[in-house]
Amino acid sequence: MTTNLTHSDTEQLPVRQLPLAGLTVLDLGQIYQGPYCGFLLAMAGADVIKIEPPHGEPVRARRESLLPLAMLNSNKRGITLNFKTEKGRSVFRDLVAKADVVLENFMPGVMERLGLGAEALLEINPRLIYASASGYGTSGPNRDHLAMDLTIQAMSGAMYVTGYPDRAPVKAGPAISDFLGGIHLYGAIVTALFERERTGRGRIAEIAMQDAMYPTLASNLTLYYEDPERNPRTGNKHGALAMSPYNTYAAKDGYIAIICVTEGHWPALCRAMGRPDLGGQERYASHAARCAVMEEVDELVTAWACNLTRAEIMAAGQVHHFPCAPVRTLNEVVHDCHMHERGMLNYVTHPKLGEVVLPNSPLRFHQSPPLALKANPDLGEHNEAVLSELLGLSAEAIDSLRQQGAF
Amino acid sequence: MTTNLTHSDTEQLPVRQLPLAGLTVLDLGQIYQGPYCGFLLAMAGADVIKIEPPHGEPVRARRESLLPLAMLNSNKRGITLNFKTEKGRSVFRDLVAKADVVLENFMPGVMERLGLGAEALLEINPRLIYASASGYGTSGPNRDHLAMDLTIQAMSGAMYVTGYPDRAPVKAGPAISDFLGGIHLYGAIVTALFERERTGRGRIAEIAMQDAMYPTLASNLTLYYEDPERNPRTGNKHGALAMSPYNTYAAKDGYIAIICVTEGHWPALCRAMGRPDLGGQERYASHAARCAVMEEVDELVTAWACNLTRAEIMAAGQVHHFPCAPVRTLNEVVHDCHMHERGMLNYVTHPKLGEVVLPNSPLRFHQSPPLALKANPDLGEHNEAVLSELLGLSAEAIDSLRQQGAF
Repeated sequence: MTTNLTHSDTEQLPVRQLPLAGLTVLDLGQIYQGPYCGFLLAMAGADVIKIEPPHGEPVRARRESLLPLAMLNSNKRGITLNFKTEKGRSVFRDLVAKADVVLENFMPGVMERLGLGAEALLEINPRLIYASASGYGTSGPNRDHLAMDLTIQAMSGAMYVTGYPDRAPVKAGPAISDFLGGIHLYGAIVTALFERERTGRGRIAEIAMQDAMYPTLASNLTLYYEDPERNPRTGNKHGALAMSPYNTYAAKDGYIAIICVTEGHWPALCRAMGRPDLGGQERYASHAARCAVMEEVDELVTAWACNLTRAEIMAAGQVHHFPCAPVRTLNEVVHDCHMHERGMLNYVTHPKLGEVVLPNSPLRFHQSPPLALKANPDLGEHNEAVLSELLGLSAEAIDSLRQQGAF
Repeated sequence: MTTNLTHSDTEQLPVRQLPLAGLTVLDLGQIYQGPYCGFLLAMAGADVIKIEPPHGEPVRARRESLLPLAMLNSNKRGITLNFKTEKGRSVFRDLVAKADVVLENFMPGVMERLGLGAEALLEINPRLIYASASGYGTSGPNRDHLAMDLTIQAMSGAMYVTGYPDRAPVKAGPAISDFLGGIHLYGAIVTALFERERTGRGRIAEIAMQDAMYPTLASNLTLYYEDPERNPRTGNKHGALAMSPYNTYAAKDGYIAIICVTEGHWPALCRAMGRPDLGGQERYASHAARCAVMEEVDELVTAWACNLTRAEIMAAGQVHHFPCAPVRTLNEVVHDCHMHERGMLNYVTHPKLGEVVLPNSPLRFHQSPPLALKANPDLGEHNEAVLSELLGLSAEAIDSLRQQGAF
């Protein structure tokens, strides 16, 4: 499964190797958080070896998991190891001696109980980066709480600030805790890799999903500090209720988001609405003034928007220069011309899913075009290749390991 | 403004320097996305110089911006430069010659129009990492669309999948597009810094907020591929409707999120509910079976949860071992004992905000305790210090630059 990509921004200059070329990563990630981190490492040029138990990582057991597996494990190799056997653990230790990075998102303590904790592995390989992601981190009273995206959205406050004030708190639809965790884990790993080039020493790094959520509440916390008792669910209005217009509005064919950010945007929107007179009125002269009459402002915009399609409003935004965007359906997003042209989304034929759209990496390095996507590995697909390449094992030795239950 | 932090996980071993010590970053970031990236770089040990126009970055003009400014600009130094004057641009070029990283989140093209585009700056300093974040990236048909968190949530599909099916799409309350963008930008920068240690060469890197949002839709896209016409807003149910129980439930004193992930969790929850008989019934024997009667399962859990407090349910989750978490208010989150004990949240006395809670970095490097927080700089607070230290300018030379409108 490959795609051919060309990119205007990289065609003029000589192509350069991807920045992480030459690195070997042992990716014990499961479900979304760890695998996303491994995916980013693979797409930045590392050789990422996904290691699963013989029955596969938990997500393989789910009927619906083919697409997430395909999205988050492209361009990795896949092996199995049975950590319940000494042979399995021993092969892992041998791989650690050859690797640059181990990443995992088990519960804190799981690797230690296997005798494969960070400190034990750094004794084998002092240049190793050992990076773990968990819900609450490896220290603090809640470290052993079970965590998943939903529970972290609840615990972090994200859910309390999402939705309409007249309804119960609701989670963000995307798995934001998992993915914020995964990309923070990537950041921690690459930071430690940079340091290792300077010091020659490995590192233990960690992230907690709950920690990674907190900064995203910047606007909501502003409202909280202004009035701790206030219901912080503002629907599609600004999280701190400090900008207006800032909302979604019903158009003829769906919803459209419109914001005025700079003070020039409001007069621009007023011109687009055929009401240039409003742009100069004292009543609407600043965000503070408009926020004082926010419902009235929203009604003005609604009265205009409801007679137009989302495309017509977008065109007006381009002409008059104010920020707006359609509330797009997933069908529109999957077939987004812009992301396909940029190479962020790729139409591919996947061996199990057939024709499907898969993402490339959001990390873009100029002069290094996005890698062609290679399908996620089958369970244990690269057992022989990896063990012979990295550990120099013969076919006989590998067969013997298999018989001893190593994988 | 300082805090004294101790951490059990770092007390045993000798303290190590933070990984990015010795690096100089020119942070042109504004509002949330760029500043968050700069904040992470500062907390990982870099000398981050926030550069603002003489009237301050846009967020300073907002009444409500003190808290976000404080959250995202701790431990940076702050200078002003007037890019509209040749002297201002010239000082910037001189700083670029001494810097390791320039980061910005202007609209694509802004820096080029100033004569300060990535390629021009890499000519001055071939070891420079130039990193930009924008809504849609620097290539593709939509690159010049104005973008903010709200419009990217709309455009990316995040809004379409958030909320209840009987209500209009609603944004995630936290500014997820901005912060996913900011941490991806951090990842791109540190990746390029790693590469530079090996090759001696700088890089142009970029991220687009819209790109960074796509992978987070993994569950929702699963549902889309199963039935493209289905309303993908599942409230607090699983994004792919593939797990049950997976929801929030009304407790006596608020809501609580409860999930069964592994097959052991359901019998555990049944024991907690005083209904161990349900744990063995064929009708509820798997996620697939329970999803077929999801409303019934949710009613069983609701009937139990509604008579208990969130704390009582949490205690049951700990005893019986199933994942759950209270839907916490912002007041509960800000005063979270766990995050304070870990050093992720710090009680500080801020010169402008007074007593307030500010975040430390979610990136945690063992043996390097989190830095004590230093308050975000005032506008131009470090003009003299930075220009004399980095450029070796005398007080007279700095004064002359000021008179020529450089800052």
